[in-house]
This record gives sequence, C-alpha cells and structure tokens, in this order.
Amino acid sequence: MPTANPILIPELRVMLAEGDTAGLREVAEELHPATVAEFTEGLEDAEIWRMLDAVPVERQSEIFPYYPMPRQVALMKASDRQHLGGLIEWMAPDSRDDLLRELDPEFVEEILPLVAKAERHDIRMLLSCPEGSAGSMMTTEYASLPAEITAGEAIARLRSQAPNSESIYYIYVLDPERRLLGFVSLRDLILAKPTSLVSDLMQKDVITVRMDDPRERVVEQLARFDFIAMPVVDDRGRLVGIVTHDDVLDAVRQDATDDAQRIAAIAPLGEGYLEAALVSMTWKRGIWLAILFATAAVTAMVLARWKSPHAWLVAFIPLVIASGGNSGNQSATLVITALSTGDCKLADWKRILRREFVVSLMLGLLLAIPGYLLGLAYAPDPVHALVIPATVLSVVMVGSLVGCVLPLIFRSLGLDPALMSNPFVSAIVDVVGIVIYMGMALVLLGG
Amino acid sequence: MPTANPILIPELRVMLAEGDTAGLREVAEELHPATVAEFTEGLEDAEIWRMLDAVPVERQSEIFPYYPMPRQVALMKASDRQHLGGLIEWMAPDSRDDLLRELDPEFVEEILPLVAKAERHDIRMLLSCPEGSAGSMMTTEYASLPAEITAGEAIARLRSQAPNSESIYYIYVLDPERRLLGFVSLRDLILAKPTSLVSDLMQKDVITVRMDDPRERVVEQLARFDFIAMPVVDDRGRLVGIVTHDDVLDAVRQDATDDAQRIAAIAPLGEGYLEAALVSMTWKRGIWLAILFATAAVTAMVLARWKSPHAWLVAFIPLVIASGGNSGNQSATLVITALSTGDCKLADWKRILRREFVVSLMLGLLLAIPGYLLGLAYAPDPVHALVIPATVLSVVMVGSLVGCVLPLIFRSLGLDPALMSNPFVSAIVDVVGIVIYMGMALVLLGG
Repeated sequence: MPTANPILIPELRVMLAEGDTAGLREVAEELHPATVAEFTEGLEDAEIWRMLDAVPVERQSEIFPYYPMPRQVALMKASDRQHLGGLIEWMAPDSRDDLLRELDPEFVEEILPLVAKAERHDIRMLLSCPEGSAGSMMTTEYASLPAEITAGEAIARLRSQAPNSESIYYIYVLDPERRLLGFVSLRDLILAKPTSLVSDLMQKDVITVRMDDPRERVVEQLARFDFIAMPVVDDRGRLVGIVTHDDVLDAVRQDATDDAQRIAAIAPLGEGYLEAALVSMTWKRGIWLAILFATAAVTAMVLARWKSPHAWLVAFIPLVIASGGNSGNQSATLVITALSTGDCKLADWKRILRREFVVSLMLGLLLAIPGYLLGLAYAPDPVHALVIPATVLSVVMVGSLVGCVLPLIFRSLGLDPALMSNPFVSAIVDVVGIVIYMGMALVLLGG
Repeated sequence: MPTANPILIPELRVMLAEGDTAGLREVAEELHPATVAEFTEGLEDAEIWRMLDAVPVERQSEIFPYYPMPRQVALMKASDRQHLGGLIEWMAPDSRDDLLRELDPEFVEEILPLVAKAERHDIRMLLSCPEGSAGSMMTTEYASLPAEITAGEAIARLRSQAPNSESIYYIYVLDPERRLLGFVSLRDLILAKPTSLVSDLMQKDVITVRMDDPRERVVEQLARFDFIAMPVVDDRGRLVGIVTHDDVLDAVRQDATDDAQRIAAIAPLGEGYLEAALVSMTWKRGIWLAILFATAAVTAMVLARWKSPHAWLVAFIPLVIASGGNSGNQSATLVITALSTGDCKLADWKRILRREFVVSLMLGLLLAIPGYLLGLAYAPDPVHALVIPATVLSVVMVGSLVGCVLPLIFRSLGLDPALMSNPFVSAIVDVVGIVIYMGMALVLLGG
C-alpha cells in the first residue's frame, strides 16, 4: 500500500479554489491512476470528489480503486447516490467486488438499482462467492472468441471487445455454451498468418480453477505456470471470469503479512501498520497476549506446587522452557510455510513426522552438551547435573513434535495452519516442559 | 515449487526403452513446459536428457527452467559440454542467470566459450549484478521500438522481434542512445489507427527501476502500478532489461517464506521443506537454537545468584519472561512486515515509537490486572503481590520497545530487518525481564 504523498496538495487546493478544471483534469488524466490517488489522498473527501469530477467517469473509475480501502468506503459514504451508480458501473468488476464487500449490505442495496441491469447481475454473482475463493478474486471482464474464425477476424473482433477487457493478452476460446475449449495469447494471434484458424492456434491444454477453489490454489497454479491470468470455470466447465496476475500478487503479499503476524501471535491487522487504530491494534495483540498469559499462569501454578530439595534447579527453568518453545516454533513455522507454498501436502504427514523426529533428535543432542556443562557448574555432582541435558533433549523433541503436528491438525480441519499454531505450541510446550523437568528431577534425583 | 508427479514415469520408461521418439516428442511438445518438468522429474538424469533430445533445443530451453534448481544443476553436470552451449544460448536470460549463479565459476567458464558472442555479453552483464538487485532479476529480452514510426509499422516490426521476447505486451520506446522515452502496450497498438505515430500513443510517464535498486523496490513498484513488467535502466537512463511479473511473484513468495523462517529463528532453508537435507536443516535451526540457548544460559546464571527470601516469586519467573518476549515478538514482527510491504519507512521511526509506547502501555495494564490477581493468590499480602503487575507492565513495555527498535536498527544499517530481530528480541528481553523482576522484588519487598 503506497502512503499518501502530500507534495501536490497546496497546488491542488489552489486549483480547486480557482475552479481551474483544466489544471485538475491534466493532473487526473496524465499520471498513472495509482499516482493520482497517492497525490490526492491528502485532500478532504469533498475535495477529492470535485477533483474527480474534472474527468469523465471512466477515468474516475480507474483512479478510485487505488485509494486505500477505508478511504474508498469513506468517499462512497460522502457522495450522493446518483453519482455512485455511474462509478460502480465503470469500475473493474474485481475492484468493485472488493469495495462492495466492505460496505453495509443496506448501503449496497441502495446503490444497486442505479447500476445497469447487466452489471447488476455480475455484481450479485461475484458477491455470492465466498470470501477467499477463486470467485471472490476474479473479474468478469475478459476477452473471448469462438473457435472457427481466423486470426485476422479475431484481431478485428478484439478491437471492439478490448475497451471492456481488463486483460486482452489471453483470449479464451468458447463453444456456444461458453464452455472453455482453449486459449490463445495475443502474441500468438499477432504472429500468426491472418488466415490461420483460431482453433489451430489455440492451446487446448488449459489450466483452470473452479469458482469455489481456495485462493491458495489460484496462487499456486498461476505461479507454477507463469500466467498473466487464470481462467475460472463453474461446475459445468463454463468460463465465468479470470483472476489476473496483479490481484494474485496483492493476495500473496497480504497473505504473507497475515501469516507472519499470526506466527508472532497477532490477529492479522488487515491494514497498514501506521493506519491501524491504536485500540484495534491493542485488541488484536491483547487477545493473544491474554491467552498466552493464561497458559503461563498455568505454568506458574504448577511451579508453585513444586517443593524440590534441589534449589539449584530453579535457575534453569526459563532455559528448559525456552528450548522447547524455540524448537517447537521452528517446526510449526517450517510446516506452515511448506503447506502454504505447496512444498508439502497434508498427505506427507508421515514424512514430516519422520523428518522432525530425526532433526529434533540431533538438535536435542546438540543442546544437551552445553546443557550438561552448565549443569556441572551448578549441580552438587555429575549425576545430578544429568537432569539438565536429559530434560533439554526431551523438551526439544516434544516441542518439535507438537510444533509440526498442530499446523497439520489445523489444515486437516480445513482451517488456516497459521491460524493459532505458534501461540498454541508455546502454550502447550511451556506446561509440558515444566512437567518433564519436574519428572526428570524426581526420577534422577528423587523427591 | 510443484512436486514431482510420478504418474507417467512407467509409460515414459517404456517409450525410452523402445526408442519411441515420436511418443516422447508428443509429451514434451503438447503439455505446458511446467507440466512436462513435473511429469519427468522422477526419471534419472540420463533419461531426462534422452527425453529432452526428442524435441528441438528451443523447446528444451523452455522446459529446463521448470525443474527445481538443485536438479537443474545436477542435469548440467551430467551432460556433455557441447550439449549445454545450445541450451544456455536458448534459455530465457533471467532463468539462465539464476542457474549460472548456482554453478561453480570454473564450470561456467568452461561452458561460456560454447555460447554465441552476443549472448555471452548478456550473460556476463547479468552475472555482474549483485544478488538481490533489480539487475539480478531482469531479463535482457524485451520488445523495443523507435518513436517516429506508425502503429502499423510497429506491429510489423514486432512480428519479427517477438520470437525473441519474453514479453511483448509492453513495448519500450527508445531514442538512438537506447534511452527510455516512453512505453506503449500491445493492447494500445492493436486498438490504435494503423497510421497514428508511436510517439503520440506512448505513455511518457514511465516508472522505472535502476539496475542496483534492491529487489523490494521492484516488487513494491510493480505491485503498486499493476504492471506486467518493470523496465530497468542504467545510471544514464538507458534501458538494459525488464523484470517480468512472474519473477516478481516468485520473489515475493520466496521472501515471504524466508521472512517467516527468520521470525521463527531459522536461517532460511532456500529450498522446499521436504527437499532440504536433514543435516543442512539441523544446522540452519541449530545455529539459532544454540545462540538462544547461550542467552538463556546467561539468564540462568543471573537467576542462580538470586537468593530471595520470597520463595513464592520463583513460580512466576517463566510468566514474567514470556510476557516480555511475546510482546517484543509482536512488535518486531509488525515493524518487519510494515517495512517489507512499504507500509512504513525508516523515517517513520518517531511515529512507530510513539505508537508502540501507547499500545504497550495499554497491553501492559491489561495484563497487570490478572497478574495482580494471580499474585494475590500466592503472595503473603496485597503489597507483596504488587511485584507481579509492576514487573509485567514494565517488561511488556520494554519488550515492545526493544522489538520495534531492533528491526529499525537493522534496516538503518542496510541489513534485512527480519535478519535477526526476533531471536535477538527474545534474547535481550529474557535477561532484561529477569533483572527487572529481581529489581522490583528488591524495591518493593526489600532484600
């Protein structure tokens, strides 16, 4: 998300005050729509609307989606309904769908009658796709052709279709029932002899996603095949829309941020760090801190009952707990990232468990050595000192096991593996770690 | 990274045994190159080469980059040098650059003489760009035109340039010194009247990156403007290459995985979870576990010197330490993700500090309440119990402060903010937390 750039604000305000429509039009027409949004974001809502009114609604609809989402919502609410009908009609279907999902349903029902009937049907179809599905990412504007025409005719037809198409770089070849037969790139059409048939030029091995496929699948397929867009089909194989590369990139960046925040026990902010309200940020962090605090309280209660005659063991409590938490955190994160990039699947669980067993055994042994040396420095004799390495080894192994199993469980329940894995790993491993430590002390040193 | 698909292996082996070149050619020609790589990855190196030899070198060069990088390296080493010259010559410059960077420099010097001179120059230029720069991501194959020709002429020229261009969807308009004047999309060329001049059709407001710009900047710009490709210029404004959307998507996905792994104190694997060798994985986790273990050992040594008369305090040590570590981890992750998505810049450090101060004060107070109640349950009197909330509040605030400052320091030193922030936060906050706890006990309860 680009931050607002205030450099042109004074000049824009002078133009607005002087009613310099030509000047405003020049700014809004000549720059990239993303840059226009950046430069004008610092204006008041009413000023932005006066600025946008200097250009036709087609251009307004290109600039509008580049404002941050909360601002788009505020601008919608600050405008008269009549104005919005035209804007909504012209906006790219995917940007429009993103915006309408953020508005109150009553507000949407108020605007929809002002939108042309054909568009209204599209809007309702996209809004009906569940959040996070291929359908919710797609646009209904794409270029399509029948199979039996020539490359020359195809280019002539594209000339008339193009203004309505977000992407004409892939053209989808459909039968009369709109079932997808193949696709041809604009590049291939240009390079082909004008007399060759589209049906001979097209690639028949089309990779598609279904409307209800999860967005991870769209990302994985588009990234694997380096496509500019992925076609989306319904359950009868009919083309209903396309997901374009830019929306996939945005989704990947947003998911990466969300996952990193979940790994650090934060409910995803969903907006820029500097934009998020302090109360909402406190809540999104506080809820997880409180849960982690509650589990730490359990650890404290367990510890409070521990009346060991071996006072030197107390100093090693944080070390023992941290070893398990750290290795568990590592395992959870490795499995979460591997699942989200498609490097491994749920079905690989046996291999994952085997790998984690071997690696955590090696890691545990690695840490057990300095653990024993440390123990020797504080324990009354070499046998007593064994409690430290024995506990470290067990806790590291238990930590890794819990860490790799939790994301797999979440995935198998149809949940996002990053959802709560890392905080839960800490919670479980802390308590288990302290119990193992107390148990080892009891077994090796006696009560 | 797609995983190998073994389903066709038996059939392919039959074709190889029978010398069924026509059958092999059909598989290698008809499917998407990514799919061919997936289906053949399960074969031996020599079998893959025999399979690839069924198709011309142009097609081989399209399939080859879709094998996982370690396999590409193995295949290179398993082939005779003469064979490689042709393949290297035909590969897309960016895929070729990625591969050559993985090979021993001596090996590369052996192959280069077998490559045509013009390509050799390109290869050396790309190899000279530092890792992680725009230059190292770019391809030198792009479509370019002079400004003074018509749209009709332009399309005719593209027909001859196109076979060498990874992307002809944006065409760059250059002056005789190859300085970038503007760009025109293939879509605009197709829609324009054939007699209109390219100089009138082109967008003059070109957004570029420089060869030595960091890859984060390429990602940010391409994502902001929804481009299919970003032009890369040298310090005199001459076009040297383009970075295409698919490489940006790959970079974003790889960076996201690396960052998540760094946040969990793992040196980035750089390869798939299931592919990574167990020894290398143990090392990449063990190095950080060992560092964290060493800092936990410091905490243990500090604790061992603590002879408090107030035995009930011991049970709360893990809780106090964890509160600081968790809030510090949250702050570090928020700042790291905000810096990497461009949501905030180094220059925003004052706002960041102010936000973290307010939020951590609220979080600290939130946790202090249950902390006091817990303390009351175990402390001999209500005044003694105050040690817990007072420590929790201070530790949460110190944790957040350290958590947000460390990534900013790493960024200001030109390092990746995710590099070591989270592990360092834990390390620092653990020790500081225990010292604060001991200090609070001393002040409020006396020695």
